[in-house]
Amino acid sequence: MRVVYRLQGVGAEATRRAEALALEQSIEMPVEAVTDDRVLRDVVARVEAVEPQADGTSLARLALSAESVGGDAGQLMNMLFGNSSLLDDVRVVDVQPTAALSSHFGGPNLGIDGLRRLTGVSGRALSCTALKPIGSTVADLARMTRVFGEAGLDVIKDDHGWAADARASFRERVVACQREIDAVGRGRSTRTLYAPALSGSRDDLRDQILFAEAHGVSMVLVAPMIVGVSNFSALRREFPSMGFLAHPALAGNQIASPALLGTLFRLFGADAVIFPNHGGRFSYTPDICGAIVERLRAPMHGLKAALPVPAGGMSVERVPELVAEYGHDAMLLIGGSLLIARHELPARSRAFVDAVAAASSEVAA
Amino acid sequence: MRVVYRLQGVGAEATRRAEALALEQSIEMPVEAVTDDRVLRDVVARVEAVEPQADGTSLARLALSAESVGGDAGQLMNMLFGNSSLLDDVRVVDVQPTAALSSHFGGPNLGIDGLRRLTGVSGRALSCTALKPIGSTVADLARMTRVFGEAGLDVIKDDHGWAADARASFRERVVACQREIDAVGRGRSTRTLYAPALSGSRDDLRDQILFAEAHGVSMVLVAPMIVGVSNFSALRREFPSMGFLAHPALAGNQIASPALLGTLFRLFGADAVIFPNHGGRFSYTPDICGAIVERLRAPMHGLKAALPVPAGGMSVERVPELVAEYGHDAMLLIGGSLLIARHELPARSRAFVDAVAAASSEVAA
Repeated sequence: MRVVYRLQGVGAEATRRAEALALEQSIEMPVEAVTDDRVLRDVVARVEAVEPQADGTSLARLALSAESVGGDAGQLMNMLFGNSSLLDDVRVVDVQPTAALSSHFGGPNLGIDGLRRLTGVSGRALSCTALKPIGSTVADLARMTRVFGEAGLDVIKDDHGWAADARASFRERVVACQREIDAVGRGRSTRTLYAPALSGSRDDLRDQILFAEAHGVSMVLVAPMIVGVSNFSALRREFPSMGFLAHPALAGNQIASPALLGTLFRLFGADAVIFPNHGGRFSYTPDICGAIVERLRAPMHGLKAALPVPAGGMSVERVPELVAEYGHDAMLLIGGSLLIARHELPARSRAFVDAVAAASSEVAA
Repeated sequence: MRVVYRLQGVGAEATRRAEALALEQSIEMPVEAVTDDRVLRDVVARVEAVEPQADGTSLARLALSAESVGGDAGQLMNMLFGNSSLLDDVRVVDVQPTAALSSHFGGPNLGIDGLRRLTGVSGRALSCTALKPIGSTVADLARMTRVFGEAGLDVIKDDHGWAADARASFRERVVACQREIDAVGRGRSTRTLYAPALSGSRDDLRDQILFAEAHGVSMVLVAPMIVGVSNFSALRREFPSMGFLAHPALAGNQIASPALLGTLFRLFGADAVIFPNHGGRFSYTPDICGAIVERLRAPMHGLKAALPVPAGGMSVERVPELVAEYGHDAMLLIGGSLLIARHELPARSRAFVDAVAAASSEVAA
């Protein structure tokens, strides 16, 4: 697997740092201490290039051995950035999984096409909103879900802050919210999905999906960096017909977000990935957002494309711009900016849905 | 739960950022959009203080509600730093769990006293080394384990880079290495522990511990930030007599290490915590290392003390300094610097063990 790291310094200093990084991220000991030639040949990471940059940093391209990266997603993260994450002067800029790794992890179960089949939406971008705030009662959530469903939103997700044992428990939320969207969905050509938020240990996650699936849920929200990527990857294998909407919580800023939210989340099985879009509450630039979207949708060793979900302080007013930027194969997520309408929430939600349809018709697929 | 964040800027700008952070890390929506008074009162995080610092940053102390933090370790991380980790200008400086949270998560099963009972070591610091490099054969690992065990090392851990399906698989390592330390341990007053590295999903982790426990293993190595803290916490509950040696891989540098490796790893159940000591391959300062050690050992709502494990490029020559700095209640970890002795590994390992004993006798407990 090829990885590009950003290091401080240029020239001999950068080369020395790159060589140290290659050891740190593989055998974690001095080369002189290795007695097995096979390890030196097949296991130690290799420095392929160190290129000085205009800002005084260097980009170092390393090849990590397939043997060290292994078949487990957590192990991949460990070899990618386990120890180096503790350093202040090293960042991961880019990750290029091999065809073998891509095939091993398998990527999205459903991908964009599968999510279109689930929702019945074609010929336009998708719309998504969030059930907030945490602390609301089940009755409040059901009411909101009904409003959003009647407005024709495509996906209604839990806020990622909902815990399993919250005031409105996972099971209560699933039963109440799924009932609402089932009720409003009858007779429509498109189908609104309710995506409850998973949390807890692997056992909790499995129990939650089993319960949700039994109640008709076909998409769940999960934060891979919180639940652990190994668990995320295991869930994707265990539930091949479930859609996974990945949340970036705890993703940090030390691994470039196109590499983590784009390449790696898709590799491990995200069907759709939420990212903080430029111009909202977060500080990602348009270039970074464009790169995330490119990694989610571009060809990648035969993996399905994942749906980009720009979010983080978006508004109905920005829908035309967002659709123009990301095209039809994106799902726009607007949460708080709908709820702020309070008693005008139904109208505001319909305005969002209408804006997505109108903007999509202006833009080629 | 009280949390101190570092923000850029001072004065009104910092106050505005702190208020935004309080919303981001709780209800994730504008206050104006909240219609439920109970949510405003009991769920929204509160800004308690914003203090300007000499370097142009501010320290903001927030109180997160128990309801939002919930009973799950992953949820706690989510509310602590989920969304904010995506920002460049916010760091977590300090975390102060309440007595209720401490009691809920429970901290170390064994703690320092329990690890002393397991190893039979009293009146001195402990010694630890690592089996390296990944890629070695089981026969190589068994031979190393025999050498380290005969030298009297207290803990022999797997390198954290070992995956379950490596050339020497988890099960092969456990059988071979545990057999060696059982053989060398007969008739001694102290007992060497072999700590194999766990990896994979929650199911994998459980299978690995069950197998290891059945083969006499009483300590395991685990990286909480890779496996997911919810899983780590669940393992600690499920295996109350197992010692958990926590590795900092993927811990990053956005949450201050005394808060993450010290307070939170201990809270979630680490009996011993490896950290990169100053003067080695990493860049932690003596102050940061001192603060980590303090968090691991200081009184904390009745939780057991956890054993600090300074590591990351230490050498036998530094043993007197390390013991003088950290005292008896620490475990010194030296890996590559022993192995570099190659055919003199037995003598070098004994020199390490002797140095720890000698340095400990110079220092008050």
